[in-house]
Formats: sequence, C-alpha cells, structure tokens
Amino acid sequence: MCELLALTANTPTDICFSFAGLIERGGNTGPHQDGWGITFYEGIGCRSFKDCLPSCDCKIARFVADFPIKSNSVISHIRQGNRGKICLENTHPFTRELWGRNITFAHNGQLSKYYELKNDNYVAVGSTDSELAFCWILNELKKKYPKRPHNMATAWRYVVKLCNHLKTFGVFNMLMTDGAYMLAYCTNNLHYITRKAPFGKAELIDQDMTVNFKDVTTENDIVTIVATKPLTDNESWTQIMPGTHRLFKYGVCVTPDQR
Amino acid sequence: MCELLALTANTPTDICFSFAGLIERGGNTGPHQDGWGITFYEGIGCRSFKDCLPSCDCKIARFVADFPIKSNSVISHIRQGNRGKICLENTHPFTRELWGRNITFAHNGQLSKYYELKNDNYVAVGSTDSELAFCWILNELKKKYPKRPHNMATAWRYVVKLCNHLKTFGVFNMLMTDGAYMLAYCTNNLHYITRKAPFGKAELIDQDMTVNFKDVTTENDIVTIVATKPLTDNESWTQIMPGTHRLFKYGVCVTPDQR
Repeated sequence: MCELLALTANTPTDICFSFAGLIERGGNTGPHQDGWGITFYEGIGCRSFKDCLPSCDCKIARFVADFPIKSNSVISHIRQGNRGKICLENTHPFTRELWGRNITFAHNGQLSKYYELKNDNYVAVGSTDSELAFCWILNELKKKYPKRPHNMATAWRYVVKLCNHLKTFGVFNMLMTDGAYMLAYCTNNLHYITRKAPFGKAELIDQDMTVNFKDVTTENDIVTIVATKPLTDNESWTQIMPGTHRLFKYGVCVTPDQR
Repeated sequence: MCELLALTANTPTDICFSFAGLIERGGNTGPHQDGWGITFYEGIGCRSFKDCLPSCDCKIARFVADFPIKSNSVISHIRQGNRGKICLENTHPFTRELWGRNITFAHNGQLSKYYELKNDNYVAVGSTDSELAFCWILNELKKKYPKRPHNMATAWRYVVKLCNHLKTFGVFNMLMTDGAYMLAYCTNNLHYITRKAPFGKAELIDQDMTVNFKDVTTENDIVTIVATKPLTDNESWTQIMPGTHRLFKYGVCVTPDQR
C-alpha cells in the first residue's frame, strides 16, 4: 500500500518535522519504496517535488525535509505500488485544474474494476487506479458544478458522496485539497492531530528527532497533521473512524458533526 | 521580459551546464529576478521545480543546477514579470493534461487585449497573459482534435497556426513540449544549437564554467538546446528568424523546410 501525510494550517507552516519522519518509512522504517511526492500550496499557487526513488535514499527528499517551505496546505505520499508501474506519471500527489484552481490528491488503497469509472473531461496520464479515481471525481464535480460554487463547503460535501461511491471499489483512503480546504476520507486507516496553544514537544517515531513547537509558533497558530499512522509517540492522535471523513479549512475541522 | 531555455534530445541528458548559465541571468548577469521554473520529462511523466525568488539567489535553483536529472525534454524559464504579480501561480513553465499527456509551456513576451481569447475547457489559475494564451492553445487543440491524433506532427503544425494568431496580440516567443516534440516559436528572440558527434568543449558566457561534451556523451547522441540568447560564446548558435519556428522531435529538427 502507501502512506499519506497532510498539513493544513491557519498560518503558513513548514512540514519539515513530519516529512522527515515520513520519508524514513519509504524504504527504511517502512516498505513504501516505490517513489514519493509532496505538494505545497502558497495561496492558490502550488508546487510539487517527486521522485521514483525510495524517499529514504533520495537526495531530493532529504533536500525538501531540510528546506522549510511555509504553506497553509501540503499533501505528501510515499508509494508502495500495486496498480501501475514505478514511474513519474504514477507518482502521487496528482494536481489538476478545476474552476481555475489547483486541486491536489493522493490515495492510499487499492481499487478493483475501476475501469468502469467513466470520464470525459479529465484523462489519466499514468496507469494507477488512484489517478483514474481522481480524474473521475473532478469530472463528476465539473458536471455537477460547471462554475465554481459560491459555497465551497457544498462542493466538498459532494466530494464525500463521490468517495462513498469509490469505496465500493475497494480501499480508498485519500487526501484532497484546493489550498484552503483539506478533505481526509478514511476507508480503514487515517489519523490526525491538531496542534494549538499551549504548544509542547513532539518526538518522531521513525527517527531520533524532537521539536518544541512552542519555539516555532505563535499562540494563534492552529496546525493539523493527517497521517496514515501517527508520526509521533508522545502525543495523542485521533483515529478517523473507518467509513468517515474529516474536512478541514485552514487547520480547523469543519465537518458538521465533528466541529 | 523573460528568458527561455529548452533541451530536446534523443537520449536522456542532463541540463545542468545550460541551467547553471541561465540562473545567473535571474538577478546576477541578467535582470530576470521575478521567479524561475524548470520542467523535466521522464517518458510521459514530468516534474517541475519552481520558486518566486531570483534564481541566482535560490537554494532550490542551485540544487537543481547541481543535480543531474536525465531527460529527453526540458523547458525552463526565468521571469521578469510584466503581466501578473510575482507568485507561484504566475511562475512558468505551466503544465496541463491534454489527450492523457502532460503538455508543458513557457512564454517570453507580452500580449495586449489577450482577454479576447475565449476558453471553455482550460481555465487559467494565475493572472498572466502567458497562462491564458497556453489555455487558449489547449482549448483550440481539443476542439480541433477531441481525441489524440495519430500523427502528432499534424497537431503541432496546428499549434503553429494558433501561435500565428497569438502573435497578432504582441510579442510571443514560446516553448511547448509533450515530452517527445519540442516547438520553439519565435516572434523576435530565440536561438538554438544542435550538438552531436564529434562533440567538443563549451564555455558558458554567464559564469566561469566549461564542459567537454565528449566526456559525457556517446557518438549517437543528438542534443538540441534552445535559448533566448546563446549561453556559450565559443560555439555557433543559430538564430530562429523572427516570425518562424522550429519543431524538434527528440533533439532532431523536423520542421518541413528546415530538416
């Protein structure tokens, strides 16, 4: 399978600490060695770094882990391929334009019979079930809302409905963002933690690294990290229950029943 | 304005030498300090690196200049903004999907009245004339060829026609690639050089750097570099005459009258 990581925050925040933990799982403390990728939003613009090498051995991944890019919204993925060969076009996250916005997506899981998903507007470049599912979501969104809806929360609720359909094809844990909202949809394995004042220390599970968030934050900061498995062992992560989701906006949970 | 750089080759080749020259022009030997970007193709997959900082001062640009990513097709751009503020979404190159392929584009010049360009399918994320022109090209291509044409050279000839229309809006020097073909369309300023056996030495204009291509090539390699202005001063670059273009496929010129 794969592992997912996201950051959503009310102030531009770097993900170096969490990403340093994740990339160890890409061939060192975990088996996800078929490539990695990370996408950072700065406003509505975004940029990605990706490679087909195991993240634990990749100079680009090390560079990114050491380079503090401040972002309100980040999605990262380390891959253990099942559908589609190891190549750049099959490496998550995937970014496409919808309504003049960059939408970014990464998936953990495996779908069957996914070729049944019909698609007019968005054509997959690679051969993964994940990219096809993403293209199908965008296609259905554009059919339902030809123009960008005024109330984006409505559109995100529709994405949840689409995910409910996709999970009938198999395991579908996914992260999706437009730079403001972050949807974490869980079939079987996703956790999150929201850090806010009073900030404390955190210790990575996957390498000997500690950060005192008090030193790098202000008291107004709200930063949520979503990950397949908790990345720290001295904090309390919340499991997203199988079959449910969380929608965040700039770090804050806005799922109606979880606010 | 801006500066453009492209590599098209029959074997995966790194662009470190040329890129090292270009990034000096981004704030050091040239005034193009409003961001930079570079997109590498590996097969039909591609990845980009970009930043809003001047390339000459940017750690990511230095990292890319030192890191030999081998590619058959590369487009790079350093920006001196005229239309649109300095931000990530206005930073070239732009990549969009068409017919299940990644298409990448960068532009040097300035267009007027470009809001007249109508566009249904591809919506610009940023606010540059360049991205809007690119979206319009893709939109027109998709209207003309709803499915990927069997003979891609025909589609590229159609892109030239579209560029002929775009140049009526102003200065339009551009590079566009699908990973196999590379179109260099010139309104007023583009040069290229095709290097093949017997390979020799090249000396950068913008910094003290020499490479002997004989040491890093085989006798079958064909590598073409396209740039706004020549990057070396001991080789003979060909100017693409204003109002004309060159179409390359894997390093080889395939423009009918220039083969």
